[in-house]
Amino acid sequence: MRIAVLGTGGVGRTIAGALATLGHDVEIGTRDPEVLAARTEPDGMGNPPFSVWHADHAGIVVRAFGGLGEGVDLFVNATMGTGSIAALEAVGAERLAGRTILDISNPLDFSKGFPPSLFVSNTDSLAEQIQAAVPGARVVKSLNTVTAALMVDPLALADGEHTMFVCGNDDGAKEEVTGLLRELGWRHIVDLGDLSAARALEMYVPLWLRLFQATGTPMVNVSVVS
Amino acid sequence: MRIAVLGTGGVGRTIAGALATLGHDVEIGTRDPEVLAARTEPDGMGNPPFSVWHADHAGIVVRAFGGLGEGVDLFVNATMGTGSIAALEAVGAERLAGRTILDISNPLDFSKGFPPSLFVSNTDSLAEQIQAAVPGARVVKSLNTVTAALMVDPLALADGEHTMFVCGNDDGAKEEVTGLLRELGWRHIVDLGDLSAARALEMYVPLWLRLFQATGTPMVNVSVVS
Repeated sequence: MRIAVLGTGGVGRTIAGALATLGHDVEIGTRDPEVLAARTEPDGMGNPPFSVWHADHAGIVVRAFGGLGEGVDLFVNATMGTGSIAALEAVGAERLAGRTILDISNPLDFSKGFPPSLFVSNTDSLAEQIQAAVPGARVVKSLNTVTAALMVDPLALADGEHTMFVCGNDDGAKEEVTGLLRELGWRHIVDLGDLSAARALEMYVPLWLRLFQATGTPMVNVSVVS
Repeated sequence: MRIAVLGTGGVGRTIAGALATLGHDVEIGTRDPEVLAARTEPDGMGNPPFSVWHADHAGIVVRAFGGLGEGVDLFVNATMGTGSIAALEAVGAERLAGRTILDISNPLDFSKGFPPSLFVSNTDSLAEQIQAAVPGARVVKSLNTVTAALMVDPLALADGEHTMFVCGNDDGAKEEVTGLLRELGWRHIVDLGDLSAARALEMYVPLWLRLFQATGTPMVNVSVVS
């Protein structure tokens, strides 16, 4: 599959690298590739400079958002939630029309410290705002409920005996995403219905943050028991 | 232990009945006991008239909120979220001073249908609003993340292999509540810290509602895996 990942932070790098390892044809997008390549310091989250990562992932082409996505089947939104809509608008509605957007971002507001609050919640969600901004695309929400290392390697925790959720308005797009999740190793995938369920998935993240604090590890998830 | 349960709907009846069965001295509070006793129709949620339930639980004294709580160690708030603060104010700050309030309610807004939204979320919670309304009490949030039948009988699902959460500002009150949870059969109890974690517990409820829809049963919960 041809896949474009938006976002070159820790999450974008992790998902792009894992999808390339699975044999997909992956490109990664950023606002300004020259600025990104020139950085020599760790980013704000403590990740090494992008160039260090890219030296180990030379098969992944880096493009500006506006040059991303030619012939691409599926886009992964791995940008910070605050920048997601601008990034997708920079890719362009035409390029995204009819394509699947796997939205793994979260509407986190760190302006008042940790734990962050959400800049959209309850009666709306970031995924729905993305869908409204790019109505021709097929948005699927998933993977936003776990840390990046677990997104791409669920077997690293409890032999994969924990749950991933998907939701979206287009059944075909959900099947595409579910197929990718299975390739990554996810065994327990619960379809929560249409994209309005993204409100629930995004509002779960504050509980995940508390579990991270309580357990002392980001390698934490939940398993649905019924 | 002497326990007062606020709320005579399905949740209040279930928790009051279970605590009485465990041997606690339980009373249950409502706005107007005479009106409640006179009802002959099922309530808005389809529960049988209170008098039918009370005939099987005659040991549980029914009182108006204002007469509730003399000599009581622990209060359980099982009212609808929209009426919780008024109910506790009717009990009175003096009666609640120094006492533990186990808040099991949720800030559900059904005004726009199902699934409900939340009338407080993200940067505040119902539990914190209750704590602010009754600053002398020791509020602990728990049990709001599962259906009433599971609150009082966790062993009815997967041999109890699923998780309950607690949070609150007072460690002694959390220990009291944790003791009650263990009496009810809860084996896996995660302390999420201070009462601001109630935001996370209340914002999880929309995901629970989606899981209820997806699995077709209210007997659904999550197990924390780390």
